[in-house]
Amino acid sequence: MTTQRSFTRRGFLSSASVASMTALAAVPTRAEPRLQGDPRRLYGERSPFEQSARSFGASSVAVTTGASRTPLQDLYGIITPSSVHFERHHSGVPTIDPARHELLLHGLIERPLKFSMEELRRFPSVSRVHFIECAGNAGREHRGNPGPTVQLSHGLVSCSEWSGILLSTLLREVGLKDSARWIVAEGADASRHSRSIPISKALDDVIVAYGQNGEAVRPEQGYPLRLVVPGWEGNVNVKWLHRLHVTDQAAMSRDEAASYTDLMPNGKARRFSFEMETNSVITRPSGGHKLAGKGFHEISGLAWTGRGRLSRVEVSVDSGASWLDAELQAPIYAKALTRFRLPWKWMGEEAILQSRSTDETGYVQPRREVLIAARGMKEGPDGFNHYHGIKPWKVSRDGNVTHV
Amino acid sequence: MTTQRSFTRRGFLSSASVASMTALAAVPTRAEPRLQGDPRRLYGERSPFEQSARSFGASSVAVTTGASRTPLQDLYGIITPSSVHFERHHSGVPTIDPARHELLLHGLIERPLKFSMEELRRFPSVSRVHFIECAGNAGREHRGNPGPTVQLSHGLVSCSEWSGILLSTLLREVGLKDSARWIVAEGADASRHSRSIPISKALDDVIVAYGQNGEAVRPEQGYPLRLVVPGWEGNVNVKWLHRLHVTDQAAMSRDEAASYTDLMPNGKARRFSFEMETNSVITRPSGGHKLAGKGFHEISGLAWTGRGRLSRVEVSVDSGASWLDAELQAPIYAKALTRFRLPWKWMGEEAILQSRSTDETGYVQPRREVLIAARGMKEGPDGFNHYHGIKPWKVSRDGNVTHV
Repeated sequence: MTTQRSFTRRGFLSSASVASMTALAAVPTRAEPRLQGDPRRLYGERSPFEQSARSFGASSVAVTTGASRTPLQDLYGIITPSSVHFERHHSGVPTIDPARHELLLHGLIERPLKFSMEELRRFPSVSRVHFIECAGNAGREHRGNPGPTVQLSHGLVSCSEWSGILLSTLLREVGLKDSARWIVAEGADASRHSRSIPISKALDDVIVAYGQNGEAVRPEQGYPLRLVVPGWEGNVNVKWLHRLHVTDQAAMSRDEAASYTDLMPNGKARRFSFEMETNSVITRPSGGHKLAGKGFHEISGLAWTGRGRLSRVEVSVDSGASWLDAELQAPIYAKALTRFRLPWKWMGEEAILQSRSTDETGYVQPRREVLIAARGMKEGPDGFNHYHGIKPWKVSRDGNVTHV
Repeated sequence: MTTQRSFTRRGFLSSASVASMTALAAVPTRAEPRLQGDPRRLYGERSPFEQSARSFGASSVAVTTGASRTPLQDLYGIITPSSVHFERHHSGVPTIDPARHELLLHGLIERPLKFSMEELRRFPSVSRVHFIECAGNAGREHRGNPGPTVQLSHGLVSCSEWSGILLSTLLREVGLKDSARWIVAEGADASRHSRSIPISKALDDVIVAYGQNGEAVRPEQGYPLRLVVPGWEGNVNVKWLHRLHVTDQAAMSRDEAASYTDLMPNGKARRFSFEMETNSVITRPSGGHKLAGKGFHEISGLAWTGRGRLSRVEVSVDSGASWLDAELQAPIYAKALTRFRLPWKWMGEEAILQSRSTDETGYVQPRREVLIAARGMKEGPDGFNHYHGIKPWKVSRDGNVTHV
């Protein structure tokens, strides 16, 4: 009963005090030294006391390939600081001079054109908040060998305010031919990473982005130009974008014919599995945290779906026996991270914490076993792409939080 | 007629091409070298080609006092990158160890308490997008000696996703006494900057913030803790917050009795003029920009109000003879920057560009002359606080943009 009653904001506030906080008999004399501070800086940095950073996975041995993960356990709100946005690349981060960078549009269009960065900035622009998630995010959860922290298990997702031109604006400018069915996007990195996108999506909500969180797109995110393909797997969001080729069929590039397909139990592979399903994870408390003491704690996490908006996130603190609706941070953007929160009173018991999201299509985040039954167990250490099972964390009696 | 017709998105898109863009007879052979890129970084930085930065005003001679301004002309969307958030301080930027920082709550409350940073993070939290604006922003416009760029004229306003605890949550926890009328917030900087806030505002939407754009509040913005007082003049948003004293009257601190009052034409001074009125400014193109050529350009800028939401922004390109509704970026947050945009076809004529905002209370941004008639002309080089007159930019026939 205590746990149930505590699951409301009212329950938190009606409590006389938070157990560990210091009551004062009298206001202390303030005799701290008053030291003159540091001078201002032209371009600010974070406090030296803040050390949160991206981490590199085991597959990132070579300095110019692999992935790095966002420290979700340390973040607030829904905006991921650009400095810790996750990244994945195949030939390192190219250094591109924006004054020499051009975007080429050719193929099944009326007017092949190339655009300088200055020219692109003359077009009508948009700014929209969207998540980007690697198809392989949480893949190790599938195999049952997850990382010990939420950064290692779910850190291949981030969220930014992206600014640029709707691809539909550019395509109307250059005039699509009737036979246009696909658009192949290619990056200017040494691997010439490329993916094909159906023209219907290209005319929907895809952004040719030059801005990220108010400033230029960061080098690791595709400076000076990247594609943002809302809700679709990360590798389609081509970085260092320099070419858009309009075609009548998919390119069947290496990155879509070999790398980013999903082997099913019947031996066939799903391809063009673009949409990221709904997913959620509790980020605080999460693996590696230790609860500071009994009493009230806020449970907080992130949920998302590539299919529109979140409609609900439920949280369980009793191994799934009961679920309670978390509060969703407003406004809820389409295809963006959504922060959820729920106050919790912890009395020192062992507890399993889980979150479960539902998106506006009615799809509910499945349990791991359900997902494996549907999609099978792929060989190899990394599990399959598009894993999005419910994630449990265990709170021990000493307050330590670990993966189950 | 050309100008009028061009003032629609349809007009932009139906144009056969943007004049200066390069048409291609054939797709060029791509023989660029493919250079392996740079390795990943734990904490990313922007491209070395990006040099936009804060600027220091003439009053900022000493390294530990003064203000620095946000480069609004270079920004996209509504989020200000934390590294270029404007700042104003009186004794430099203190270096505070968060493990030793405490917030003291005392005065007319039932339970005087102090909270460590870890304790504060256990409370129910919120994340909200709000602007902060210095009361003196655009003050030089008033005197008719504005800076030549929008950074110098309007750069004392920025906007972040702030995360923390509603002050109302903390006040309910400690129990207000019936006689509580004001709350005095004090910073831990050497100047012990302090301001009094009516208890009604404290119980409304004030945030005790530890997060800014997803990570910890930056040092220049008050690390590890600041007050965010939505819509109220910047100096009330006390940084490096270490004390909240609940009282029955305002403290009449130096910062509110001397510095931040507004002398009126009748010789009396307004005090506690907290709310920032609606304001707007075109940031692109703006002073110092040069239009790259005739044809289409996007006019873009920022509008805000301390009184809730923007309801309208109009733009004129003909010295105020006619005004057209700009598109407002959705969602429109309360007490946050709102991005407005309008496509414009420039045929090489001299033009005066202006924006005019209206907020949800119906208040319309006034012309400079109207504002001066109401509030007078204060002596001194800096003009008065709370200046928010309409800002014109002149486009010359050569494309150069300057202050009128």
